[in-house]
Amino acid sequence: MSHEPDRSAVLDELRAVFGADEVLAGDASPRHLKDWSTASGGTPLAILRPRSTDGLARMLAICNAHGQAVVPQGGLTGLVGGAVPGEGQVVVSLERMNAIEEIDLGSGTVTVQAGAPLQAVQEACHEAGALLAIDLGARGSCQIGGNVSTNAGGNRVIRYGNTRDSVLGLEAVLADGTVLPMMNRMVKNNAGVDLKHLFIGSEGVLGIVTRIVLKLHPLPRGTSTALVALADFDAALSFLRHAQQSLSGQVSAFEIMWREYLDVAVATNRLRRPFAADYPVYVLTDMHCGQPETDARRFETMLEQAIEAGWVLDAAVAQSMADAEALWAIRDGIAEVLREQAPTLNFDVSVPVGRIGECVARMRANLERGWPQLQALFFGHVGDGNVHVVVCKVPQDADSLHAIEEAVYGVMRDYGGSVSAEHGIGVLKRDWLAYSRTPAEIALMRTLKAALDPRGILNPGKML
Amino acid sequence: MSHEPDRSAVLDELRAVFGADEVLAGDASPRHLKDWSTASGGTPLAILRPRSTDGLARMLAICNAHGQAVVPQGGLTGLVGGAVPGEGQVVVSLERMNAIEEIDLGSGTVTVQAGAPLQAVQEACHEAGALLAIDLGARGSCQIGGNVSTNAGGNRVIRYGNTRDSVLGLEAVLADGTVLPMMNRMVKNNAGVDLKHLFIGSEGVLGIVTRIVLKLHPLPRGTSTALVALADFDAALSFLRHAQQSLSGQVSAFEIMWREYLDVAVATNRLRRPFAADYPVYVLTDMHCGQPETDARRFETMLEQAIEAGWVLDAAVAQSMADAEALWAIRDGIAEVLREQAPTLNFDVSVPVGRIGECVARMRANLERGWPQLQALFFGHVGDGNVHVVVCKVPQDADSLHAIEEAVYGVMRDYGGSVSAEHGIGVLKRDWLAYSRTPAEIALMRTLKAALDPRGILNPGKML
Repeated sequence: MSHEPDRSAVLDELRAVFGADEVLAGDASPRHLKDWSTASGGTPLAILRPRSTDGLARMLAICNAHGQAVVPQGGLTGLVGGAVPGEGQVVVSLERMNAIEEIDLGSGTVTVQAGAPLQAVQEACHEAGALLAIDLGARGSCQIGGNVSTNAGGNRVIRYGNTRDSVLGLEAVLADGTVLPMMNRMVKNNAGVDLKHLFIGSEGVLGIVTRIVLKLHPLPRGTSTALVALADFDAALSFLRHAQQSLSGQVSAFEIMWREYLDVAVATNRLRRPFAADYPVYVLTDMHCGQPETDARRFETMLEQAIEAGWVLDAAVAQSMADAEALWAIRDGIAEVLREQAPTLNFDVSVPVGRIGECVARMRANLERGWPQLQALFFGHVGDGNVHVVVCKVPQDADSLHAIEEAVYGVMRDYGGSVSAEHGIGVLKRDWLAYSRTPAEIALMRTLKAALDPRGILNPGKML
Repeated sequence: MSHEPDRSAVLDELRAVFGADEVLAGDASPRHLKDWSTASGGTPLAILRPRSTDGLARMLAICNAHGQAVVPQGGLTGLVGGAVPGEGQVVVSLERMNAIEEIDLGSGTVTVQAGAPLQAVQEACHEAGALLAIDLGARGSCQIGGNVSTNAGGNRVIRYGNTRDSVLGLEAVLADGTVLPMMNRMVKNNAGVDLKHLFIGSEGVLGIVTRIVLKLHPLPRGTSTALVALADFDAALSFLRHAQQSLSGQVSAFEIMWREYLDVAVATNRLRRPFAADYPVYVLTDMHCGQPETDARRFETMLEQAIEAGWVLDAAVAQSMADAEALWAIRDGIAEVLREQAPTLNFDVSVPVGRIGECVARMRANLERGWPQLQALFFGHVGDGNVHVVVCKVPQDADSLHAIEEAVYGVMRDYGGSVSAEHGIGVLKRDWLAYSRTPAEIALMRTLKAALDPRGILNPGKML
């Protein structure tokens, strides 16, 4: 915007319409100033907590009339600063719009308000007898609306897809307060442009998601889990394709960990080492199933064939829930690793699956050449092309940070990869967007932004 | 457009740049004037057959400068007139851009030009050892670009999703000739707005798709197939949820047929009746699998439990490929039914799965009340909420046709359904779009259209 809004007029209008509990002072609640990333912002003009879509629409209409910037917030568990407010912006928190409106098992859908916490929705669906497939580490705090706005990924994408794939319909409010009630409940609907995709993964810059219809899956009757050891990435890739074919798409997680990651995660979390020997690469895989006894045999047959073929060198198969949890503790130990190794620089890139091996080797070589004193850990959701890189105890000067980012993102770019597989762009990755998108694509994003939010009030400075 | 383009100037410019084999006269090829529907159009100004994305981009730039309307064409198997040209419009056929550029088994992707016929791509992938999951009756003629532009459905959606779910990336050309090279090859990519969704299912009104990266699935090692008989829709719904849970998402087709459909299909195609008795509802289901012997037992266990529970009254399980083909012949017999019962009025609606039973009952009652002499057949892809209705030997006067449409679409609208589950809107369903979309949604579609195609040259009169 070329001129500043009249902030006191904005506040007066909001307070004339809404009660004190819906319009908090900008400094009333410190938790609304930060997400889980290192991004820092400013003090907002106000923190709005609408109770309904109509209320939110009216708030946006007021802000839009003044050209007042608005920052939508979910559970504030983002890792790129996408929901962190700038000085004088208005925060809109969806936390009070948290109803689970309907679980319809016949149609396989759950209808929720955007502010419902992910875990609460998961548990309600589980209790009703169905699986909400969206799942990620932040489940206790993150909100469904944030999951949708960032197209959240997680550990189950290989089987159930990204958040986008669970969204059948949604309601969104445009910058000017227009409500789009697109609460489709069908898997198939080709009646015109499928507008919901504008609001999934676009980090609140095109509209604010207020209600969502999510697809439900059958509740698994059991899970088979194994950690396997392999000689290199090529073996992991062969194992992946074999498992996918043998289990016919039922592979429900396929997490790769290179040796350094496993070593650090085991030591940091004081876990038992899973194998007597060391191996270059490990894969944690599991399968949700419907006929547990028969399916456990299918899982073991799949593993035996992978061992016979020479792809898998050793395997630890969980015989109990406790076994499975012990294996997952290695992968989930990342949280404690990040604390112990702080300050870290964390990457969330993706490249075509078949190129991950050489891509990781080149990233590793770049880092070892430039920063031989730093340790880098590699792991990720390999079936989706998603690699996480954690560079430990990094120097905090801007030049070093930028050079390390260049060492990783430059390789990613050579493979036509993505600078953000699942975390989004926000503010922290904005400068690197052009490594994954061409000028024509970024221009089209700006065209959409201008068409849907001509005054540019929605989450300005994020993504674009 | 408020004024007509200078058509002779358009032709002159096109002919100055492109050879005679790339710029055909508008009446040179009658097959470019029609699709598989009843929609009729006019004689185009020219039929363009670009050899490359750059050529197509240059053609569009010329047309856009003159405000010349352009109609993109794939294999012309559409059922709603979406690719039928109006008088004086320019046809752009993608038929020469038909290369299968790369099959990458490691990354699980196939890269194709838009004009590649679906079946050719399916066969190439199968030969390489992977499954392209997009499949529909028109496979021999339809083109991948058309499948993408219409978000084609088919019989495998319950397991593998719509065409949209198989598209990882695409290249599209905007009305002004801008090329968007968005050939993403990863399942996870959250680097900015996911622009590809603008061009999937939008029937060519926002841009022309020229190249596509499709996701591949593991090749099934076997298929289990059964036709079952049930007492009513509620039993079919219980059976669906049971099969989904027991086979853990591996159900690969779930086609419902109400009695009249099966009777007519069997008689018309001179097939053997599958059961000694008659039943109100039938379901044809199958499962793609990876360990055929074990998986066949799982499939039978699932069926036995459904019989014990009382949902399934009788079942015919295929013991051979020939058996499976005989069962599928009943469902695939629709083609011959449509010929025999012509002229028919065909519906392709969707409603929430759990409401299909009452929805069909109400549609049936409406039709029997208004047109007791007409026969109506009901069948569809029930797992996706998709119901096809065929009204046989319909009177051809506009009033009757409109009244019959109202009798079906009015019910669909009451359930928040879609006027087009998989066929798109084109021209034939344009007048009914508002039964499935609110004015705010249609206004946003127009906003997008104005932003991406300000002169309105792309497929004017279609969808909107």
